[in-house]
Amino acid sequence: MHRLNVDLGERSYPIVIGSALLNDPSHFGQAIRGNQVLVVTNETIAPLYLEKVLASLRGFAKVDSIQLPDGEAFKTLDTLNRVFDTLLEKRHDRSTTIVALGGGVIGDMSGFAAACYQRGVDFVQVPTTLLSQVDSSVGGKTGVNHPLGKNMIGAFYQPQLVLIDIDTLRTLPDRELSAGIAEVIKYGMICDQPFFEWLEQNMHKLLARDPQALAYAVKRSCEDKAAVVADDERESGRRAILNFGHTFGHAIEAVQGYGKWLHGEAVAAGMAMAAELSRLRGWVGENEVQRLRTLLSQANLPQQSPEDMTVDDYLSAMSVDKKVQDGKLRLVLLRALGDAQIIDDTPREQLIEALRACGAR
Amino acid sequence: MHRLNVDLGERSYPIVIGSALLNDPSHFGQAIRGNQVLVVTNETIAPLYLEKVLASLRGFAKVDSIQLPDGEAFKTLDTLNRVFDTLLEKRHDRSTTIVALGGGVIGDMSGFAAACYQRGVDFVQVPTTLLSQVDSSVGGKTGVNHPLGKNMIGAFYQPQLVLIDIDTLRTLPDRELSAGIAEVIKYGMICDQPFFEWLEQNMHKLLARDPQALAYAVKRSCEDKAAVVADDERESGRRAILNFGHTFGHAIEAVQGYGKWLHGEAVAAGMAMAAELSRLRGWVGENEVQRLRTLLSQANLPQQSPEDMTVDDYLSAMSVDKKVQDGKLRLVLLRALGDAQIIDDTPREQLIEALRACGAR
Repeated sequence: MHRLNVDLGERSYPIVIGSALLNDPSHFGQAIRGNQVLVVTNETIAPLYLEKVLASLRGFAKVDSIQLPDGEAFKTLDTLNRVFDTLLEKRHDRSTTIVALGGGVIGDMSGFAAACYQRGVDFVQVPTTLLSQVDSSVGGKTGVNHPLGKNMIGAFYQPQLVLIDIDTLRTLPDRELSAGIAEVIKYGMICDQPFFEWLEQNMHKLLARDPQALAYAVKRSCEDKAAVVADDERESGRRAILNFGHTFGHAIEAVQGYGKWLHGEAVAAGMAMAAELSRLRGWVGENEVQRLRTLLSQANLPQQSPEDMTVDDYLSAMSVDKKVQDGKLRLVLLRALGDAQIIDDTPREQLIEALRACGAR
Repeated sequence: MHRLNVDLGERSYPIVIGSALLNDPSHFGQAIRGNQVLVVTNETIAPLYLEKVLASLRGFAKVDSIQLPDGEAFKTLDTLNRVFDTLLEKRHDRSTTIVALGGGVIGDMSGFAAACYQRGVDFVQVPTTLLSQVDSSVGGKTGVNHPLGKNMIGAFYQPQLVLIDIDTLRTLPDRELSAGIAEVIKYGMICDQPFFEWLEQNMHKLLARDPQALAYAVKRSCEDKAAVVADDERESGRRAILNFGHTFGHAIEAVQGYGKWLHGEAVAAGMAMAAELSRLRGWVGENEVQRLRTLLSQANLPQQSPEDMTVDDYLSAMSVDKKVQDGKLRLVLLRALGDAQIIDDTPREQLIEALRACGAR
């Protein structure tokens, strides 16, 4: 069992990573301060793990659960409101704790519900997908989508505990495993070259779901992300390097319609675009771009734009992305493998060339 | 012109109180950091003051406005979503500032929109009712109602500036002026006996809208509230004394339907109930209760329950109120005039007796 601490002063919290953690009431017992709990999960995860979690919560006086529909398409204010309905119908008060059991969508919505319910209640994350284990469960970003943009409504809100049971990855579909690996690769690219090299050598183990390799990759990813977040909790500066590939990826998700491409798949293609742009700027060579493309390919991830997307689709979608400051497009590029930098002076022509290099029409 | 500072460390902000402030671009110029502004107001206030405010914002590159329907009944997630729609349709980014021009409903919703839009943008409050000037513009409470409870969804979020133009009180209906005075009286009751005595002597001036008297009452109320809030920003302890009369008041609003009684009117009756309960506990005498009732009566405020409400209506509504911790009803009572205390051990019979003393059936 690994145990990390995300160091955010009075909002610090532990991440516990290991096997058979869902069966162990002690982790919940230590983190949950009141005697009321609402487990928020979805219709896919509930049949697999809800009973196990409820059994571990048996010691609390009031334990309720709600099953939301599965998928990014349901990450909306309307779905969020169903969580508030349940909390109020079941008479949960300010001492309640919301437990998020599921992937990134469940985690983001449950965290935002916790941030807003009675202006803030406690929150425990139990991420069950690789993507949410290495990304959305660390860093306090919560929220929902708006028809005009992803994650446009939300809050920074930290959990009391993140409990990562590696066993939940056994039931994860292959495609979602790969999507999670996209974010794992990202950490290597932006701040951890040794980890990138480890991934080049161990990708086959991750794809074979070797528990040791998975636990190591999750732990290392969380450490990398926690280090970046601890420096810049509210994303005023360097934290934005975590968006490597995401501005392009969000454009893909927005234009294709949320849910058609998985988030990690869109980010994979977006990382290829950001790498091409870094090359055009003269920061990395053909070789580094190729290493990224090879690794993405090994992980069964896309490295090209969806075929039906045009350059104009990207430019239009990116101008309402959160990363725009005072009209300037901010992007994360690579100075080298393992060294990302934020820029806001990309020439339009270079941007277009990078998009075309990745197959945008 | 008065200028106070609400001292909350890095979230500190000024409150400026005076005449003709809306016409003066300098206050906005100092507080607004970006070049985008969205003014959120309602259909009642817009014809009176929107043009004036837009003129003072002429120096900013992008200034949009949205008019929401007027009234507590529209303080909902649905109305909030209209603000997000406008921000996204008009392509406001993270550097935007939301200016709330209106009463408490506009302030609460705009502040919550600012807290959530792209996980937090800047916020300026321009409260135009006495209630919002002395209450909801100070303290960072933002949010919306849920059909099952008032202010159940929200955030603690501090503005960059609160700009109180006393001239806006000239157009305030008499009934709303009185409702605002209810909260002014509250400050005297819970923490400022000299102010309570000033109110006993100067109530006629407030009702005659004497500008000097109004400015003094607003300033003194803001000072009293700011002192309480500075001690306890997130309402973990003493700040709850500001809820004096509110648990009863919220029950009245919830059972009657939001908007039938004004918030201040419900709080006035609620304060009478809390005072009666303090008397039954042996903390204040008949005399203090009578002084409160007399002052409420001078201010044309109710001191009794709505005729159609039963004791059971109150008990049922209060058990889902935010002030319930682990099943215990927390109430604010008076040890003496100007000295409030939070308790959670009210005997049910005493509660019922106090409700009956105020006309609950």
